[in-house]
Amino acid sequence: MQRSNSEAILTIAGTDSSGGAGIQADLKTFTAHLCYGASVITALTAQNTLGVQAVHGVPPEFVEQQMSSVLSDIEVRGIKTGMLFDADNTRIVAQTLKNHFKERKIPLVCDPVCVSTSGHVLLHPDAINTMIDELFPFTTLVTPNKSEAEILLSQRDLPARITNLEDMLVAARNLLTLGPEAVLLKGGHIPVLHAEIARVAAHNPQIQVVQDGLLGENMEILQTAETAKSESTLVVDVLCQSDGTTAFYPRPRLESTSTHGTGCTLSAAITCQLGKGKSLMEATRLATAYTHMGIENAAAIGSGYGPLNHLHSLSQLNVAQRSKSNPYPLTRSLIRSTGGVWKDYVQHDFVKLLGKGTLPKESFLHFIKKEIKYPSNELPQQDYHYLKYYARAYALLAAKSHSFGRILQATETVFHIARESSMHKSYCAQWGITEEELENTAESPATTAYGAYLIDTGLQGDSTKLVMALAACLLGYGEVGLWLKKEAKQSGSWVVWQSNPYLKWMEDYSGEEYQKAVRTGLETIESRAAADPPSAAKLDEWRTVWEKCTRLEKGFWDMALSVA
Amino acid sequence: MQRSNSEAILTIAGTDSSGGAGIQADLKTFTAHLCYGASVITALTAQNTLGVQAVHGVPPEFVEQQMSSVLSDIEVRGIKTGMLFDADNTRIVAQTLKNHFKERKIPLVCDPVCVSTSGHVLLHPDAINTMIDELFPFTTLVTPNKSEAEILLSQRDLPARITNLEDMLVAARNLLTLGPEAVLLKGGHIPVLHAEIARVAAHNPQIQVVQDGLLGENMEILQTAETAKSESTLVVDVLCQSDGTTAFYPRPRLESTSTHGTGCTLSAAITCQLGKGKSLMEATRLATAYTHMGIENAAAIGSGYGPLNHLHSLSQLNVAQRSKSNPYPLTRSLIRSTGGVWKDYVQHDFVKLLGKGTLPKESFLHFIKKEIKYPSNELPQQDYHYLKYYARAYALLAAKSHSFGRILQATETVFHIARESSMHKSYCAQWGITEEELENTAESPATTAYGAYLIDTGLQGDSTKLVMALAACLLGYGEVGLWLKKEAKQSGSWVVWQSNPYLKWMEDYSGEEYQKAVRTGLETIESRAAADPPSAAKLDEWRTVWEKCTRLEKGFWDMALSVA
Repeated sequence: MQRSNSEAILTIAGTDSSGGAGIQADLKTFTAHLCYGASVITALTAQNTLGVQAVHGVPPEFVEQQMSSVLSDIEVRGIKTGMLFDADNTRIVAQTLKNHFKERKIPLVCDPVCVSTSGHVLLHPDAINTMIDELFPFTTLVTPNKSEAEILLSQRDLPARITNLEDMLVAARNLLTLGPEAVLLKGGHIPVLHAEIARVAAHNPQIQVVQDGLLGENMEILQTAETAKSESTLVVDVLCQSDGTTAFYPRPRLESTSTHGTGCTLSAAITCQLGKGKSLMEATRLATAYTHMGIENAAAIGSGYGPLNHLHSLSQLNVAQRSKSNPYPLTRSLIRSTGGVWKDYVQHDFVKLLGKGTLPKESFLHFIKKEIKYPSNELPQQDYHYLKYYARAYALLAAKSHSFGRILQATETVFHIARESSMHKSYCAQWGITEEELENTAESPATTAYGAYLIDTGLQGDSTKLVMALAACLLGYGEVGLWLKKEAKQSGSWVVWQSNPYLKWMEDYSGEEYQKAVRTGLETIESRAAADPPSAAKLDEWRTVWEKCTRLEKGFWDMALSVA
Repeated sequence: MQRSNSEAILTIAGTDSSGGAGIQADLKTFTAHLCYGASVITALTAQNTLGVQAVHGVPPEFVEQQMSSVLSDIEVRGIKTGMLFDADNTRIVAQTLKNHFKERKIPLVCDPVCVSTSGHVLLHPDAINTMIDELFPFTTLVTPNKSEAEILLSQRDLPARITNLEDMLVAARNLLTLGPEAVLLKGGHIPVLHAEIARVAAHNPQIQVVQDGLLGENMEILQTAETAKSESTLVVDVLCQSDGTTAFYPRPRLESTSTHGTGCTLSAAITCQLGKGKSLMEATRLATAYTHMGIENAAAIGSGYGPLNHLHSLSQLNVAQRSKSNPYPLTRSLIRSTGGVWKDYVQHDFVKLLGKGTLPKESFLHFIKKEIKYPSNELPQQDYHYLKYYARAYALLAAKSHSFGRILQATETVFHIARESSMHKSYCAQWGITEEELENTAESPATTAYGAYLIDTGLQGDSTKLVMALAACLLGYGEVGLWLKKEAKQSGSWVVWQSNPYLKWMEDYSGEEYQKAVRTGLETIESRAAADPPSAAKLDEWRTVWEKCTRLEKGFWDMALSVA
């Protein structure tokens, strides 16, 4: 639900059957940025990591038809163009966008794809002028690499030799004269040294050097032999905007063959960031980092120049998002994943006998209830010991909390437990048991195990882990109450329910007051998981705590039955 | 790097310019499953949430060319087919796959797309027999909806009326006779009641009812008015396998118009799970859940039947993956995001004066060093107080640890600190300060603030949060040492370094032994973050702790300078 406002982004480009470049790379990049992707296809390619084997152009009318379908129905926040194939398609794209922008101007990034790395022509030469004349004038950003920049500059008889950082700066400024609001000249094919950046920046003090891709100052401890080496020659992307803003984005040069689709990916990532409202400088900073890490984290796919990894920044949620039909996804998964133990606990023989009214009284008396607000008429002595642990665990939860809301919620529970405990004392007094005797009654191992485990969990982990430990008791008794009531109703044994000697106990746990506490408990667990989504390791930790407490609960009932 | 083995999955289908169905939906689904997506396009559609406006078929030779490009280069682990457009394309797809499967059989899921929801023909009628005859025989799973099943059954004069769950079971079994290894008949258009499932399952005891989509037993507490309502009529998908295995997948029926691309998405998700090695039953269970949640979490896109949300199961990593050129991404981001404070600490005037050798001796003496293993020749008394806190924080870290490795690492640090402390006592004795006086020296507020904050953080959070709190000291002194040494070297003031009265201090912190401890600390932080990736909230918590400790460190030096 948090993603309901994901920005829609449109790519207008060619396809890459192998999935590493073209609209496929764009859609993967949009998805990795949690944006919604639409795509208009200008040409199909049969392609893999070894090269482009064949191209099938799409008729301009059909390109127009696709654009109309998308733009008439979906409010896109950013558009990028890639391979436009030929002059007709380039013209129809430019004209359609021009018309659309009359209503609403949105960021447009033009990746002037001309020739594939393997030398395949992806834009007919006669289309280059069309692109410059008809598309550039309302383009937010053009993102050529070295050879594309050289082709564009030659087209207008501008100096087109780019061999170093100074050339790049001149070229980027000259490309601006072709009409776009900004130019990002990519430096992947031009090795640059640190000293060169310092020299050019010194001569052009208005240039901002965005250092994020490199170790910054006061990061001596992060230097390793590996980073020292990787930072010896750099890749620098140069951004020039029509308002005069100029920035360098240096980063380490990676030795990698996984560079297929790098240009598509970078321009797609910039478009996402512009669509999210980021400035051009910030969008470029984030997108160059995303692309760089994609190359560095690439898997081995194909036998040639493999694709970069578009997924490096993604992980999968380990708990489903809360929704109307599944408002308690974490609890549901905890119960499902520990189903057997949970059932052993909430449908324990003790519970079944209790529901039938045939549970031996001694068992009920011995049973260490987790009952806090609902004292039965008679009180087993172990309860006294357990309640102390339980109160301490809530006190610990209060001590581990940072907001008054949470501190008070936990503290109020401590008061409840303490009140119940003093009521227990007076019951015991009625039976002739003194407080001293109560204190001196030996604590059973099951009580120690469960009580001490709660305290240990609270000391060892954070407050959420403690909440998970306290939940098995709270939720389990709620489940027992509802289940007993449902069974009584379904089996038509409502008379047995009414005459059950343990009626009060059953009514307490199935009743509204306790069920309200259960719902509060569920809300606490689920809202914590939603606000701080657990990693797989963290979820596993919670599940372990939940399962352990479920087993310890079951142990109480085993013990109670064993005395009968 | 953990994703380097992401499975490659291929879709062979039509496009949807609006991005909700077709290969676009498939690629998004593959990405959401962290699989690598490739795609072969059989036809282009100009389409949006209101319907299909135009179709452009791709020539069969070019379909074959795309398949050859992909299959000759990329080792795909699963293939799905969607819209095949016409008989020629269906035939070429079937023949190419048949040849490919001679070498290596992999899961093939056929979504027999025939007609769009809006009534547009997506598979020419004469292609249906081709699909049955030439593709089904080596298909792992066919996934028709009601109308597709009816078309397929009619084609072979089999009973084709499907109005309830019993009809579905019959239809699915009849579809099996057309050749595929299994059939998943989707129930989206057939409302089913709970009682119907129970009745059909009772008559067919071999049927497995997979309850994951509904609340199971012992989940009374998770019932809400909302879930009770949503579970009143159900959607049931029916899986029949040629080995006789039959399963029902019931789930709540959602009232939603965001169902565009549901079929594409489901078959794509199943293909991913099969590609990951899951069984057909498990793949269907996971994929139906993924698709269901996609509908439930859909955003409003377009003015008609909008797309489901393919991204509901994804989140973005908040710390970059560790890589060769960025082995310490968390620390780098902590330093970068608190750059000003960090610089105030590690390039404090105290540090600069110390590096020049001009720091007043009183300042140095008063300064509360975090020095553990590196006592200076003279010892300020505050150190004694601080070291007690620091030792207790490490003892607490040991108490919060679960493995002997971690317990011992923290405990050894406690020993180091205690040893240093007793050395301090003997120094003090030389100056005529007794242990009693040492204990009675008033603790400064800066010492209390920092020391107590460490202990509080340790009590309040988990062990990783405590590690973050202890890091600012450990790493900061390492940074100071390296920075001072670098400055001395770069400024050519090596003579000053050699004759600096604080030479030993500087050599200790820039020396190999301390730097080894720094690297161990970095490794601890980074490996914890990689094993248990933080949510945005958690990272923010760590950053807050880090920044607070950085400020407290700076406070020590402020105090030391102020006494001179």
